[in-house]
Amino acid sequence: MPSVMRAAVLRAPAELVVEERPVPRPAPGEVLVAVTAVGVCGSDTHYYRHGRIGEHVLRSPMVIGHEAGGRVVAVGEAVDPGRVGQRVSIEPGVPCFVCRWCVSGRYNLCPEMSFHATPPVDGSMQEYVAVHAAMAHPVPDTVSDVAAAMLEPLSVAIWAVRCGEVSLGDRVLVTGAGPVGLLAAQVARAAGGAVTVREPDPRRRSVAEGLGLTVQGADRSGADPTAGADRSGADPTAGADRSGADPTAGADASGADPTAAGGTPFAVLLECSGHLDAVADGLAALQPAGRAVLVGMGADEVRVPSSVLQDREVSITGTFRYAGTWPTAIELAASGQVVLDGLPVRLFDLADAADAVVAGQEDPGLVKAIVCPGGRPA
Amino acid sequence: MPSVMRAAVLRAPAELVVEERPVPRPAPGEVLVAVTAVGVCGSDTHYYRHGRIGEHVLRSPMVIGHEAGGRVVAVGEAVDPGRVGQRVSIEPGVPCFVCRWCVSGRYNLCPEMSFHATPPVDGSMQEYVAVHAAMAHPVPDTVSDVAAAMLEPLSVAIWAVRCGEVSLGDRVLVTGAGPVGLLAAQVARAAGGAVTVREPDPRRRSVAEGLGLTVQGADRSGADPTAGADRSGADPTAGADRSGADPTAGADASGADPTAAGGTPFAVLLECSGHLDAVADGLAALQPAGRAVLVGMGADEVRVPSSVLQDREVSITGTFRYAGTWPTAIELAASGQVVLDGLPVRLFDLADAADAVVAGQEDPGLVKAIVCPGGRPA
Amino acid sequence: MPSVMRAAVLRAPAELVVEERPVPRPAPGEVLVAVTAVGVCGSDTHYYRHGRIGEHVLRSPMVIGHEAGGRVVAVGEAVDPGRVGQRVSIEPGVPCFVCRWCVSGRYNLCPEMSFHATPPVDGSMQEYVAVHAAMAHPVPDTVSDVAAAMLEPLSVAIWAVRCGEVSLGDRVLVTGAGPVGLLAAQVARAAGGAVTVREPDPRRRSVAEGLGLTVQGADRSGADPTAGADRSGADPTAGADRSGADPTAGADASGADPTAAGGTPFAVLLECSGHLDAVADGLAALQPAGRAVLVGMGADEVRVPSSVLQDREVSITGTFRYAGTWPTAIELAASGQVVLDGLPVRLFDLADAADAVVAGQEDPGLVKAIVCPGGRPA
Amino acid sequence: MPSVMRAAVLRAPAELVVEERPVPRPAPGEVLVAVTAVGVCGSDTHYYRHGRIGEHVLRSPMVIGHEAGGRVVAVGEAVDPGRVGQRVSIEPGVPCFVCRWCVSGRYNLCPEMSFHATPPVDGSMQEYVAVHAAMAHPVPDTVSDVAAAMLEPLSVAIWAVRCGEVSLGDRVLVTGAGPVGLLAAQVARAAGGAVTVREPDPRRRSVAEGLGLTVQGADRSGADPTAGADRSGADPTAGADRSGADPTAGADASGADPTAAGGTPFAVLLECSGHLDAVADGLAALQPAGRAVLVGMGADEVRVPSSVLQDREVSITGTFRYAGTWPTAIELAASGQVVLDGLPVRLFDLADAADAVVAGQEDPGLVKAIVCPGGRPA
Repeated sequence: MPSVMRAAVLRAPAELVVEERPVPRPAPGEVLVAVTAVGVCGSDTHYYRHGRIGEHVLRSPMVIGHEAGGRVVAVGEAVDPGRVGQRVSIEPGVPCFVCRWCVSGRYNLCPEMSFHATPPVDGSMQEYVAVHAAMAHPVPDTVSDVAAAMLEPLSVAIWAVRCGEVSLGDRVLVTGAGPVGLLAAQVARAAGGAVTVREPDPRRRSVAEGLGLTVQGADRSGADPTAGADRSGADPTAGADRSGADPTAGADASGADPTAAGGTPFAVLLECSGHLDAVADGLAALQPAGRAVLVGMGADEVRVPSSVLQDREVSITGTFRYAGTWPTAIELAASGQVVLDGLPVRLFDLADAADAVVAGQEDPGLVKAIVCPGGRPA
Repeated sequence: MPSVMRAAVLRAPAELVVEERPVPRPAPGEVLVAVTAVGVCGSDTHYYRHGRIGEHVLRSPMVIGHEAGGRVVAVGEAVDPGRVGQRVSIEPGVPCFVCRWCVSGRYNLCPEMSFHATPPVDGSMQEYVAVHAAMAHPVPDTVSDVAAAMLEPLSVAIWAVRCGEVSLGDRVLVTGAGPVGLLAAQVARAAGGAVTVREPDPRRRSVAEGLGLTVQGADRSGADPTAGADRSGADPTAGADRSGADPTAGADASGADPTAAGGTPFAVLLECSGHLDAVADGLAALQPAGRAVLVGMGADEVRVPSSVLQDREVSITGTFRYAGTWPTAIELAASGQVVLDGLPVRLFDLADAADAVVAGQEDPGLVKAIVCPGGRPA
Repeated sequence: MPSVMRAAVLRAPAELVVEERPVPRPAPGEVLVAVTAVGVCGSDTHYYRHGRIGEHVLRSPMVIGHEAGGRVVAVGEAVDPGRVGQRVSIEPGVPCFVCRWCVSGRYNLCPEMSFHATPPVDGSMQEYVAVHAAMAHPVPDTVSDVAAAMLEPLSVAIWAVRCGEVSLGDRVLVTGAGPVGLLAAQVARAAGGAVTVREPDPRRRSVAEGLGLTVQGADRSGADPTAGADRSGADPTAGADRSGADPTAGADASGADPTAAGGTPFAVLLECSGHLDAVADGLAALQPAGRAVLVGMGADEVRVPSSVLQDREVSITGTFRYAGTWPTAIELAASGQVVLDGLPVRLFDLADAADAVVAGQEDPGLVKAIVCPGGRPA
Repeated sequence: MPSVMRAAVLRAPAELVVEERPVPRPAPGEVLVAVTAVGVCGSDTHYYRHGRIGEHVLRSPMVIGHEAGGRVVAVGEAVDPGRVGQRVSIEPGVPCFVCRWCVSGRYNLCPEMSFHATPPVDGSMQEYVAVHAAMAHPVPDTVSDVAAAMLEPLSVAIWAVRCGEVSLGDRVLVTGAGPVGLLAAQVARAAGGAVTVREPDPRRRSVAEGLGLTVQGADRSGADPTAGADRSGADPTAGADRSGADPTAGADASGADPTAAGGTPFAVLLECSGHLDAVADGLAALQPAGRAVLVGMGADEVRVPSSVLQDREVSITGTFRYAGTWPTAIELAASGQVVLDGLPVRLFDLADAADAVVAGQEDPGLVKAIVCPGGRPA
């Protein structure tokens, strides 16, 4: 085991340098992982550009990256030495395990969470990282190094599908075909949903189509821009004014087409773009008792027509990371129910971490930039 | 059986007259009910003042009233004649029974619903009304005539508590101590919740206190009006900045006090006032994974800080009437778990229906104006 | 429209005759369906052989059959005449629609249910049948006549999967690869389950394999027959005696292998064989918090080791028909998520109904005998 | 702090001695609690009599007791020293916190659980006990020492009510009015259930009545002993043979009275006696879609009529301890929704532990024998 290693350290906004650091020692209960692949997340890019996300401010140098896979090379005290050699996917957060959220299955809401690459906690874009043994999830050989890293965004998608309670036969609308949207659409489909992806960018639509997904553009030419507001006033019980055959109130009450396809409203919205228009249009496209899950981050505030809540009894929630998703993520990746390896990714050497961090913004068709601290595969 | 009867007919805004109409005949599957008590709902008052609620426009004269109890005096074809004499509470809506919402336990979302006193359907503020036999729910003698009428707003409260999934030990905040708020608070308490009622009006607070409920004023003097916005940026995982002992993120991150009592956040918000401030303050007072139910009607649009949804994973929904609540309502009323008879109500003769319709607005301490088509009890 | 038609009438055990009957007239709210395909169910065969199922006794001649599809040829009063010509799948039971079960989404438990081919109600194995308009579900042309008939057993399967709460990534064991087992396995897979089918008959296994399902034989050679009893005594908290890595108590405590594959226990058991051994083995193969659904009928009594319930907190329930499943059934059939058309079926003319009724018992590899009252397709 | 203390050690069956042991030192993350009260559980008595419970065998001396409260007198490393002086209720099991059960809110199913007084783990019937800091739950002064100890059986009751999904207005049958039954009945009532307790022993019935509970004797004189079997064959859809007015199939089909009160069937059964007859009668008394929770331990095997599962869709499960119940237990005790202090208990000095362990068996009217390691209060 070497004593020093390289790490991608964000010193200040726009100042991402690869510097030498001592190789960490696994504490009791930890394993040491040689990192093979680290995906770049939008949050890495945001810290790189702005030095903060909301209240989380970069005050001292921090290793970025929290989507990582690798191989166990050493174990700390009280960890089975037989784990050395295991290929693993790293879950990047360690909660307190004992608070009321932790013991009720929602450890993502633990106020004591320590999470990779959220200041001041170092992330995993480095050659070696020591992690809680239970957070280094073994993966079978059918899950590639890149896929192991992508189990983290896949977990975001799984959590969104769980929060949306997608079930067999549900019509599901996914807005936004970025990395999370593409994964959420695949997970919703695997859960039995009939999925439609809505995305304005043709390159991203093309990726979604390549996954066999039904795809819509987001341009709603001909739609009355006031339709949403008018529809808000509609009452699902106004039987006399509605077509009796279709119990999907809201869709019938205005000339404009809330589903952009003239079709049946959706049972579930998985909003993965963070755009307010997508939220508004998505809510309008939900059927009574529909469920909206806001995954994409963007606006500080969401505006919800009262009629959506009080006439249609739509429920709205958002997601914050995930809890208990890795077993499902591994199953979906290993079984091929979710495609991770065929996606358009681009591999970078650790030395090029600064390029990797901005690659996604430069190329919307790029699903994921992946940094390989151990070197790109030949 | 007489051939004519009196009915409180709204001919136009502000024109409520008691006129003679033929006594209805129960159709097959219906019962004829001699109405003993009809509560005045805010919607009755709204039609009286404005002639419309949203898309529902009064275009022809309509009998008002949809909170009614009475006694079965005749039955239509295919109804057990043994029902004559039964005291009943009237559920005022008849859905189609066969659409997907009806067969999934949410018939309140049926687009074919025919509902009392929603134009053009006549209501029940008349001496006799013919109703679907299954919607005339028998009540035991321990449920008074007034209470039988109040099972309708009680149903609104029960549905709210169900939608909020109030369960044993949940801290519940009820905002607004009008009729529905007082009932929702009682129902939430009966479901095992630890209930706090927040209400600015001292007369309404007094009624709530009389029911043994914990009550707060709504004036938040000293609270930083920007607290909500600041709190929005807070991240529940910012462990370093939080008191580790309390896993209730959000409450700690600002100096202002979101719960107006310095206490623990709430698991459930039942918003019964319709005021935007109450919505905003109520959402701010919810703990991670909290559930907000918007029952009170008011604003056309609700603004929700993204952090409420995406940092705390709060879920928000609204209620539209109720489904399948009468058996529970009868049980709660008959057992005394919910107090209906001791509340400050005022009884009116049918001839004074126009006074009854505005009585609530003139006296905030009046929980319910009740019209007695068969005459006020001696 | 002709005035007489042919119907397969069970006069007494083993006496199934095709006789002439008047063509029914659709009552108000009904449609008249020209039946194109009727599947033979085990219950039809059971009535044919024994003249009764439990308390249901054949006391007068009855038309058999309750798995039917066809085409609307006339409508009763109050039904849209535009429905004439629609291809439909017939849901064979009509509940009261208004009792507490009906309004809570479980109309299958309605005590007033009238169900095809359950004495004394006539079934649908006849040229024409009049049914409640809402129970004649329109199907798209991508659903064949045979498939339209098979939406009924598919509904049994969907209900089983719903009762088992199969969700994304759940390991699911289906015992028995008869018609319902094959459909339940496909539905569980469509819902995101990782499905294993266990079936002793090699012909049925072969059909299951043809559907791409993972299949096990049921012979547990080498298994210790007392393993079940021993395992009953095991306590999932006996940490010292268990392999710590695997939190799947029960599997480790005895030498015998409850999963017959040395593998991970299952989250859900869908028991579709009705055999007591399958129930016992299936329960033994469930992980803590597992869910067992007994679909197959057979024994009068099920024996459950207390340890299954009280150490592992397994839950057990059974299914009785279905409620609200046709929309999902149509979606699964139309999308191809469930294969209905490629299955080994055998078509019979109505004149050969008596042969059809026993065909399944003579050939275990036959998934469904289908009677075509309008004649077999050329 | 003294260096030695007294502990109630079970050396072998029927050999319970109070011996001196060193006062434990709190390990990192632990607190040291001076024990004030320890309830005797049936499992303590069972180990005392038989030296084993199923696979759990007493192989070396073990301190008994797992229902304890006390006061924090010292803290280990990494624990807030401010906790010294806190009055606490001790949750007696420590799971691994990281397995799939632990992270999904069901840590009671953790295979690595270490639980007080389950061989070989020492219990809490001693003057001092070191416990995981998170398992020493602070209680307010409104919760007495005895009540603090009784939060453990209260947790069993809360878990049973949660597993039974008791909700507002549910009719709940509790069979057995021992300690757990009395608590389960109170918790079910607090959750909004309409509770009936069935208990053959008049002394226990008297305690239940003192709590304001509705109580039945269990003798079903006049009941047809074959009623259960006959009822098993009944089909809830046999409309012709049933009283149409009551959708509670099963109750009507035989002359004998499954509810022992001629009344409405129950939505939930909480079986707390462990008697097979109570299980059988309780299942027979459930309505369609009813839920049975087997809490009482007794038989090795439960027999369930198939009709209960497959005609009525009753679900059956059992409970194994509890998870995440202490916050609710504290709330219920502190608010008085559950009465703990007025129950018939008997206090023993530690020196009399052997008497305490058999006191409950000698006096069925005794709800709980409590050992006070710090001495009985004056």
